[in-house]
Amino acid sequence: MSKQYHDNLLSDDALDQLFREARTYNGWLEKDVSEDQMKLIYELAKMGPTSANMQPGRFVWVRSEEEKNKLADLASEGNQDKIRAAPVTLIIGYDIDFHEELPWLFPHTDAKSWFEGDEEGREEAAFRNSALQGAYVIMAARAIGLDCGPMSGVDLDGVTKAFFGDRPKVKADWVCSIGYGDRTTIFDRSPRPDFETFNQIV
Amino acid sequence: MSKQYHDNLLSDDALDQLFREARTYNGWLEKDVSEDQMKLIYELAKMGPTSANMQPGRFVWVRSEEEKNKLADLASEGNQDKIRAAPVTLIIGYDIDFHEELPWLFPHTDAKSWFEGDEEGREEAAFRNSALQGAYVIMAARAIGLDCGPMSGVDLDGVTKAFFGDRPKVKADWVCSIGYGDRTTIFDRSPRPDFETFNQIV
Repeated sequence: MSKQYHDNLLSDDALDQLFREARTYNGWLEKDVSEDQMKLIYELAKMGPTSANMQPGRFVWVRSEEEKNKLADLASEGNQDKIRAAPVTLIIGYDIDFHEELPWLFPHTDAKSWFEGDEEGREEAAFRNSALQGAYVIMAARAIGLDCGPMSGVDLDGVTKAFFGDRPKVKADWVCSIGYGDRTTIFDRSPRPDFETFNQIV
Repeated sequence: MSKQYHDNLLSDDALDQLFREARTYNGWLEKDVSEDQMKLIYELAKMGPTSANMQPGRFVWVRSEEEKNKLADLASEGNQDKIRAAPVTLIIGYDIDFHEELPWLFPHTDAKSWFEGDEEGREEAAFRNSALQGAYVIMAARAIGLDCGPMSGVDLDGVTKAFFGDRPKVKADWVCSIGYGDRTTIFDRSPRPDFETFNQIV
């Protein structure tokens, strides 16, 4: 039986660490992220919900000099140095044929058949749900005391070819550096909207 | 100067509340979610990163009987009762014309011009980044002691027309009930993959 935490507000420190004081970093301290840390991030993030537990995200953790350079060369000019300096940059991709895994990921019903023959629908579902998984990764990295630098400015077709070339149904979607952020490299916090601006209660 | 939390692992209880013990609920205790709670969720979630701070998510919190019925009628059969029983169900939509807001959301450069004339690129960016925002909402709701029931099984065109009909560039993307989960309504946890299954370190 799962534990419940009804009305249990996390501590102010925890909310600061996850949301309010966490920032997007553009530069990194010279301190490695270990394989154990990468695995711990994933072990937490994979518990987050995806539609029919499809888990369409496919993740490449880029940490060797050679692979970092390969990825950096495919990034927009402003992102190249960030990728080279980060201890690790995660490529978030998604598998359009995620439904092949549903017999073991969602075993209590034949969910695979829901998606067969509808490649466009699968791509939409994979895109949406892998983005959720990437957000869980960001929250998990912060929860273990690391910082993130998510980036959209990369040549996605090039990254797909370079890092998922052996898997024709997997596409790269965005990337996220992870490490110990250098606080001298952050910008002023961009404005955040009031609740009323983009929310309605009906 | 932002505070940093390097190597500060949140407590086991906090990690359980956010990730390991949190579950997707299918039924709800009869206990309301207040407007203050909705606002607190948004105040936390809005701090999460989006590309160029675009904040493309547009959120409708559906809590009146009438609007709940309207939304439930547009859901797949299995989701209708869940929506009627939940204290509130959030519609996550996105604004394809989010770039109109960038002059105040990303004031230090002319980011609006990056997106002008490229509606397809804007829709892709809005879709990806509003999914991230929805994931931040899930994590924020859990962080304040509420449970979530995210759902993809709704008629998105119908929801778009019914709830964003006055905003022609906004599209509904998915929905998420929020409340106090009834633990008798959860399924067994679906299997989660080992790190090696969907991850590579290069």
